Parts: sequence; C-alpha cells; structure tokens
Amino acid sequence: MSPAARVTEISPFQVMEVQTAARALEAAGVSVIHLEIGEPDFPTPEPVLREARLALASGDLYYTSALGIAPLREAIAGWYSTHFGIVVEPERVVVTAGSSAALLLVMALLVDRDDEVLMADPGYPCNRHFVRVLEGRARGVAVGPDTAYQLTPELVAKNWTPHTRAVLIATPSNPTGTQVSPQALREIAEVVAQRGGELIVDEIYLGLSYGERPPSALGSLDRAYVINSFSKYFNMTGWRLGWLVAPRAEVRNLEKLAQNLYISPATVSQRAALACFRPETIAIVEARRREFQARRDLLLPALRDLGFGIPVTPTGGFFIYADCSRFSRDSMKFCRDLLQETGVAITPGADFGSFRAGEHLRIAYTIAEDKLQDGLARLRRYLGTPGSPPK
Amino acid sequence: MSPAARVTEISPFQVMEVQTAARALEAAGVSVIHLEIGEPDFPTPEPVLREARLALASGDLYYTSALGIAPLREAIAGWYSTHFGIVVEPERVVVTAGSSAALLLVMALLVDRDDEVLMADPGYPCNRHFVRVLEGRARGVAVGPDTAYQLTPELVAKNWTPHTRAVLIATPSNPTGTQVSPQALREIAEVVAQRGGELIVDEIYLGLSYGERPPSALGSLDRAYVINSFSKYFNMTGWRLGWLVAPRAEVRNLEKLAQNLYISPATVSQRAALACFRPETIAIVEARRREFQARRDLLLPALRDLGFGIPVTPTGGFFIYADCSRFSRDSMKFCRDLLQETGVAITPGADFGSFRAGEHLRIAYTIAEDKLQDGLARLRRYLGTPGSPPK
Repeated sequence: MSPAARVTEISPFQVMEVQTAARALEAAGVSVIHLEIGEPDFPTPEPVLREARLALASGDLYYTSALGIAPLREAIAGWYSTHFGIVVEPERVVVTAGSSAALLLVMALLVDRDDEVLMADPGYPCNRHFVRVLEGRARGVAVGPDTAYQLTPELVAKNWTPHTRAVLIATPSNPTGTQVSPQALREIAEVVAQRGGELIVDEIYLGLSYGERPPSALGSLDRAYVINSFSKYFNMTGWRLGWLVAPRAEVRNLEKLAQNLYISPATVSQRAALACFRPETIAIVEARRREFQARRDLLLPALRDLGFGIPVTPTGGFFIYADCSRFSRDSMKFCRDLLQETGVAITPGADFGSFRAGEHLRIAYTIAEDKLQDGLARLRRYLGTPGSPPK
Repeated sequence: MSPAARVTEISPFQVMEVQTAARALEAAGVSVIHLEIGEPDFPTPEPVLREARLALASGDLYYTSALGIAPLREAIAGWYSTHFGIVVEPERVVVTAGSSAALLLVMALLVDRDDEVLMADPGYPCNRHFVRVLEGRARGVAVGPDTAYQLTPELVAKNWTPHTRAVLIATPSNPTGTQVSPQALREIAEVVAQRGGELIVDEIYLGLSYGERPPSALGSLDRAYVINSFSKYFNMTGWRLGWLVAPRAEVRNLEKLAQNLYISPATVSQRAALACFRPETIAIVEARRREFQARRDLLLPALRDLGFGIPVTPTGGFFIYADCSRFSRDSMKFCRDLLQETGVAITPGADFGSFRAGEHLRIAYTIAEDKLQDGLARLRRYLGTPGSPPK
C-alpha cells in the first residue's frame, strides 16, 4: 500500500541510524562515547519523584482538563513572575503532552493547507514535520554564522510571501545553541505583525542558558505563542510534559483542539511537575545547568583546536553545531566512519535541514566530563593534526 | 485573528457545556447525578500503582523508543494470545499516548488531503476531527437501530467513492454500546480490500463486553489497523496510554510519524501498564466489568420503562444511546432543562454526529448503582407517566 504523501516527505532521523549502529557496536563489546543524544543524562530530580509518589498515593489519576490542572498552570505562571519578573496570567498557560503537543496544537490552530511557516535551516526537524503533517509548508530559511544561525528581521521580511502565516524562532536553538537577542526578537515580531502573521517562539532550552539569564519573549512581545518544556531544564523527558503560553483570545480554540487530539496531558506527570518550581528543585537543576556549562567550556575549545568550525559560541542548550568541512563534506559518511573507527557517535547535519547539512555535525554534551575527555582523545587520534584528513 | 479553517469546522463538545453547568450547580450546593461522564469511576488498579512506584524508584524515566518499551509490546501481544487465543507478533504493536495518538497516527499514515474516511454517525466525535485536522474528510454514514447503529458491508459499498481511503469501525461503539459481528466485520473487510482501501477497527471498549467474550478483529482479518486503550477496561484514563496493532510492513512508517509527533509515550505509564496483564489485575478489572454489567442491567429496563427508545441492547462499553423523541426533539435543550430541574447530567446527541442527533442522548453508567437509582428516581419524577411530556 502507498502511504499518504506526507509520510514519504517526512525524513527519518539519521541519528537513529547512528544509534542503531552504536548499539550494535556496544552489543559486540565496543565502548561507545555518545555525543549524539539529545536528552539530559541527569535523572528526574528527587522532589519531582516525591511529588509523583504522592500523586500515586492520592489515587486521583483521572483525565484532567485539556488545558492542564489549575495548580500547574498557576505554578508555571508563577515561575515567569519569580524568575523572569513578568506577569503571565495562568489562563494563558496550556499544559501539553510534551512541547511536541504544544507545537502541533499551535500549528493546527494557525496553519491552513499550503500556508507557509518560516523557520531557520538548520533547525529542529520535527518543527517542519508538524507543519507538513497538517498539510502546510515549512519553509526553511538558510542561516549561517553571519546571523548566529538565527532568522533576522531582514530574513523574515525577505522570505515572506503571500502564503506565509507564521514564523518560528527557537532560542536557544537545537542544533546550534545560539540565541536571538530581545531587540532582534521585537523587530521580528514587528515585521510579522505588520504582515498580519503570527510569531511562535520555542523557548524549550531557555532555562539552559549560560552567562546572563536571557529574558523570556513573553516579557517584551505583545503577541506570540511561546513554547516551553519540562524535558530539558527540569530533566523530565520521559514524562512527556510541556506548555504553551498563548494570546488569551486563542486559548478557547486551543482547548478545543487539545480535547480532540489529546484529551489531556498525563495526570501523574502534571502532578509531579508541581514540584519543579520549588526552590529545592530549582537548586538541583541550576547545579546541573552549571555542569552543562562546564561541559560546554571543556568541549568547545577542544573541538575548535581539532579543526571543527564553530564560529558562533553556543550560549544555551546542550549542543554544539560544528562545521566539519575541513575533514569531510559528507557528514553522514563522516559520522558512520567515525563511529566504526573510534566508537564516537555524533549526529550528522542532515537531521536539521538541507543548508550545508553535509558539512555539519551536531555534538551533544549530555554525558559526564570524563566521557567527554575520552571522546575528545579518540577524536584527536582519529583526526590527527588539525587540518589533515582522517586516515 | 482568524484561525485555520479546520478550527471552525471542529465542533466543541456539548458535554463540556453540560459539565460546566453541572459544576456550577454543585458549587451552589445542588446534588448532581453524573450520567454524562465517559470515564470509568474505578481507580487505577493497585498492582498498576505498585508497578508505577517501582518505575519511579528505578530512576529510569527517560525517553523510550517511539514504538514503546519492548516488554510492554510483548505483554500486549501475550494478552492477545492468552485472552483471545490468537498470535500477534510484538513487532506489530505500537504503544501510543492514549488511543488518541493511535488514531491520529493511523490517519496521518493513510489519509491524504481530501481523502475520505467512512465512519458511523453517531460515533465518537474525535474520530472525525482527527481526519479533519489532517485535511481529510470524515464521511459520517447515518446508521440506526436497523443495523445496530453500525456500518454494514452494504453501507460501506454504497457510500464508497473514488475519494474513500479507509473505513473506521468502532466495536463496541461509543455512544451506542453496540457491536459488529465477526462475520459482518469480515465482509466489511472484503468490501474494503476489493476497493483497495484500509480498515481501522477501534476496539477500545472490547474488554468491557457483556455476555460472551467477543473476539478481536485481529483473529479473523488479514489486514487491519486495530486500536485499543488502557483507559477503559484497565481504568488508566489519566495515564494516557493506548496501542495500535498494524500490518507489519507499515510499522516503520508509523514509527517515523510517532518519533516526530510524540517522541515517545510517557515512560511511567508504560512501565505501570506492564502490570495490567497479570492475573491479579485481570481479576480486579474483570470484577469491575461485572459491576458495569450490573449497572447496565439496572439502567436499561428502567430507561425503557420511562419511555426512552433503546431498540438495540448495548452489549459493551458503559453507554446507553437513547431516543428521547417521546419527550423532545431538541436533545440539547432537553439536557439543559433536565440538569436545571433535576440535577441529572446527560450528554446530548449532537456530540456524536448529526443524524437524528436532536432526538438522542448518551447516558453513561460510570457511577455506582445507588447513584444510578437516585438518577432514575429523579428522571421518573421529572418525566412523569411514560409518554407524557415533561412538566
């Protein structure tokens, strides 16, 4: 049988091929250094587990409102107040089954068939696939180091067409770890508003920022759909919980879509997440954030020394997007060879778009420093003197 | 701003209006009898909670495979063997974030823009909305008591058009509680296969069947997408977990879609559900199934005595679909008045389609027998002698 057209247009994750090969190597007794994994290695914080146990004991594990339980919506709103000093009404918060659900909901709300959504290439692959699944068109805009791998007001204006409905900004970005300044974001919002479009801001990695704490887009934009997640900063990946802050007038329609598409987010996860915003949990995840920063500070100069091109310093998330053209212009083959020869697993650029994808890699620092050191040593042996081709 | 066209075409749940009004009454001190709720009142079985606690203690709460953890896929396959005597390979089982996710995945796999999916009217409202969200067309086929509110081979053949891609059968059905015989299902499958289409069978309420245990469609059909859920029979609504058994060759594409749309089902829920198929849990949910049956046996004759038309005895699920035309041909108004006058909350037919929706109600028996008795007494007082109009 031939599947729907969208299925063939959605590319499989190359990283899965890497992971399958990595697992096969491990099964054969080879030690593998995992630089491909987009998931924090830290376990769920203990206060969150404790809250989950209380939820189990309560026995109240029925469906919730499609928008999420009221105390969690209030806790999320409270976090914007205490950590960002901004007012977000709980009524605007939609709790979702991971930020995946938040992204699909927003796209389902905004995107009619053949409507376009502008987004950076490279970018998180699922974003374009959400749009495609809904019969819209994701339009990847090629971005490079000159714009810190981010869209700019000029790029948005230049790529806007009569079909453009929305712009998606991810800051910090997966895979590049780079951010959009509040000023640039405001200017992008203006360009979008002037054209009658909508702005979606993915702040999934906002909590994992290094250096000065960046503000949330919610503090400066009059209108935007802002998405966040419990997965990364709060180390709750397997709990599948995220959220969306929407313009107040659109919440009713988002609720209707959520009722139909999801019924409600998982109840235990929602109850457990209540613990996320308490000081004891924030202390844990902040310590982990500093650990991520230390890993970045270890990895970044070492990769540059090896000859990888990393012209823009990543300031958030846990990824480094590296130009590998000094070694190869076929990053898929480079990753395959690297894994076989050294046991170092890395994600090829093709997962994140098509613009110069063959010349790029995404290197994750979701493993401990000693393993990062081991990985770097293997890379040094494999790549030899900077600039020389691999053996 | 004007939302995407799909948003206006997706109708809100009328039952939510009923529930909001019911909650307002309760807040004002009025006792409400809830006959509108589509969720078992039984709590999650203790062995499932125990397994969830073990999962929390293990600390392994990361993302899983998009297809679900291997032991759960195996346990589901094992259930088909022990309870239905049929062989289902674990590789064909896709664990999903509720049957909602299973339905969206199957529709995303099969339905191109403007493709049609045939389904019974009345039927579960989200089914037509999943198709609409993906820019397909749900084609509701009017069904009445003459076909037990189900599609037949003849109806499928008659309503097939060049745009038809798939047929969805829900057995037992929400809202009617009626089933399709294995023989009729085989004949429908033949009609579908002859036309090059696909058959989707929703068996979410299969475990909650009264009388002889019905077989799963998987036992007799060569090719179908069969959907089930942990929500109803296993009393795990808030855990958001379901599954799909697909033709083996389609699993790879379903995995790709699931990776992009959901990443993975909630890990705690998957681990907890491992306990569902053990004898101690089956004993609990089977006792509850008998309780549901006792409630049906209490409610059904009483409603018929009151003058509701229930020409086909519901044999599964926990709903009775009743013709209220003896009292009103505006079931929304009937439900509104009934709630205000008696405190009895019931779902109007409009939630389930458009065919004679104004003359029908869905009455749920998800509350204990004493409350059902109370509700019946209120209905008797309100409706008076059978056949006479409400005061």
